[in-house]
Amino acid sequence: MKKVLAFDIGGTKIAYGLIDAGGDFVNEIIKVTTPRTSEGIYELLKTVIKGFYDEIDGVAIATAGAVNNDNNKIISHVGNLPEGYNKLDFISLSDKPIFMENDANSAAWAEFKLGAAKGTKDAVVLTLGTGVGAGIIVNGRLLKGKSGAAGEMHVRFGCGHERKCTCGLWNCLETYVSGNALTTDAKLFMKEDATSYDVIRGLKESNAKARAAFDHWQECLENALVMVGNLFDPEVVVLSGSMAQFVEYKKLNKQANDDILTQPFELKQARFENNAGMLGAALLLLEKIA
Amino acid sequence: MKKVLAFDIGGTKIAYGLIDAGGDFVNEIIKVTTPRTSEGIYELLKTVIKGFYDEIDGVAIATAGAVNNDNNKIISHVGNLPEGYNKLDFISLSDKPIFMENDANSAAWAEFKLGAAKGTKDAVVLTLGTGVGAGIIVNGRLLKGKSGAAGEMHVRFGCGHERKCTCGLWNCLETYVSGNALTTDAKLFMKEDATSYDVIRGLKESNAKARAAFDHWQECLENALVMVGNLFDPEVVVLSGSMAQFVEYKKLNKQANDDILTQPFELKQARFENNAGMLGAALLLLEKIA
Repeated sequence: MKKVLAFDIGGTKIAYGLIDAGGDFVNEIIKVTTPRTSEGIYELLKTVIKGFYDEIDGVAIATAGAVNNDNNKIISHVGNLPEGYNKLDFISLSDKPIFMENDANSAAWAEFKLGAAKGTKDAVVLTLGTGVGAGIIVNGRLLKGKSGAAGEMHVRFGCGHERKCTCGLWNCLETYVSGNALTTDAKLFMKEDATSYDVIRGLKESNAKARAAFDHWQECLENALVMVGNLFDPEVVVLSGSMAQFVEYKKLNKQANDDILTQPFELKQARFENNAGMLGAALLLLEKIA
Repeated sequence: MKKVLAFDIGGTKIAYGLIDAGGDFVNEIIKVTTPRTSEGIYELLKTVIKGFYDEIDGVAIATAGAVNNDNNKIISHVGNLPEGYNKLDFISLSDKPIFMENDANSAAWAEFKLGAAKGTKDAVVLTLGTGVGAGIIVNGRLLKGKSGAAGEMHVRFGCGHERKCTCGLWNCLETYVSGNALTTDAKLFMKEDATSYDVIRGLKESNAKARAAFDHWQECLENALVMVGNLFDPEVVVLSGSMAQFVEYKKLNKQANDDILTQPFELKQARFENNAGMLGAALLLLEKIA
């Protein structure tokens, strides 16, 4: 059975693990702190790959940033990784096949092949973390666009200038439905120094202001679901990321499907969490070298 | 050379014409007022098809409403056509092949095969008329979704309740970037009874209020372009419909591409106007029976 070494490269941690052709992790997943220079990241990857060399048929990398359609380089800026990271020559890491894909796309592929969107042909996976990521499956394939960068959820949600986004623009969807957005709502509806944690705690204590903050956040999320429903007509919309656990699925599923113009979709929570990126990138590579 | 009879069925007019395999209209295009009952529409189509029967290899219908993935029935409500229209048994119209597609999708296909998006694989065609329609090409195929209804631009542009949409929801993109939206801006920036026509006239006369109204409308359109750029990473975004002629392409192209996170796209005006729907539906059918 073929095996690949999978990495998930993020701004804080790099995780890696061995995955077999059945989609199972062979050993425990290892997590290391992301080195502070791009050279450091390169050397780390090289050493780990060397260590697994005899066991593996290839290397799959789920990474922050947009990855080109040949799956061998990063074509965007990557804000939270060291300077020069996006220019690294990943292909030179090993003579085994190296395959890269954006982390949100990889996670979506894992949900599509083995998780909450299994058995569908059209699905949208929204990752609601600090920011918002998306992986979109159209007719059984990842939506990649001309250069590979499609699926960026930096969709300006309104023409106004109410909420500044980390991308430099105003009112991106991310400023309304991410974890940070819930903190914005906490400050609006609760008190000046409130955070998303206060909202979640307040909900448990039936605090009315926390409920108002959460309801506003969730109403914006409903708008996002109506958007992806109307645009992509998917069978399933999957929510993953740290905020996904707080969503009231039954209520939101009904509201969004009442409001879409297309056919109903099913709203589901992701099956895989932190390891979805590694798994999805590995599955994509395994298909390629099968 | 194969020939098909193409129809474009709208709420006001039904147009039809004979199209050959090269994509040329063989005769003059005929336009008739849309009958006031669905039975009337059915009988009209049947009579016309009978008249062309000996010359044609099939019938292509571009229609308002969402069309299923088998391209043989309408799966949505169709507001501006008579009751029962969406339940008509189009396939029974003739024993020749009958092929249906949504009018915005058909128009997009015409631009993709022979018009402003020719030679691309990923393109978005936005129709800015009374409302806003879209046809989206992903990797050389129409984006249809699980049921065929994808590409509905009823994307809520913000969480607020500022502008009511014809679809019953609030703040759809259509309420910001359509012809009707320009009338809304006319009233906001000029005077209570102003319309989009006053804005266009005012622009020519260098009227400052008309310029402010138009600039607001065009800024919202820029947001829509950033959205489709970031979501679909297309090579080309084509604008068609009655409002497309007023857009300042060079300026908007630069602004939108400055603001997207993905790779630059080219903003273009549509090549085909009113006949794009018939042409696109005909080309889709011709491919199928080739």
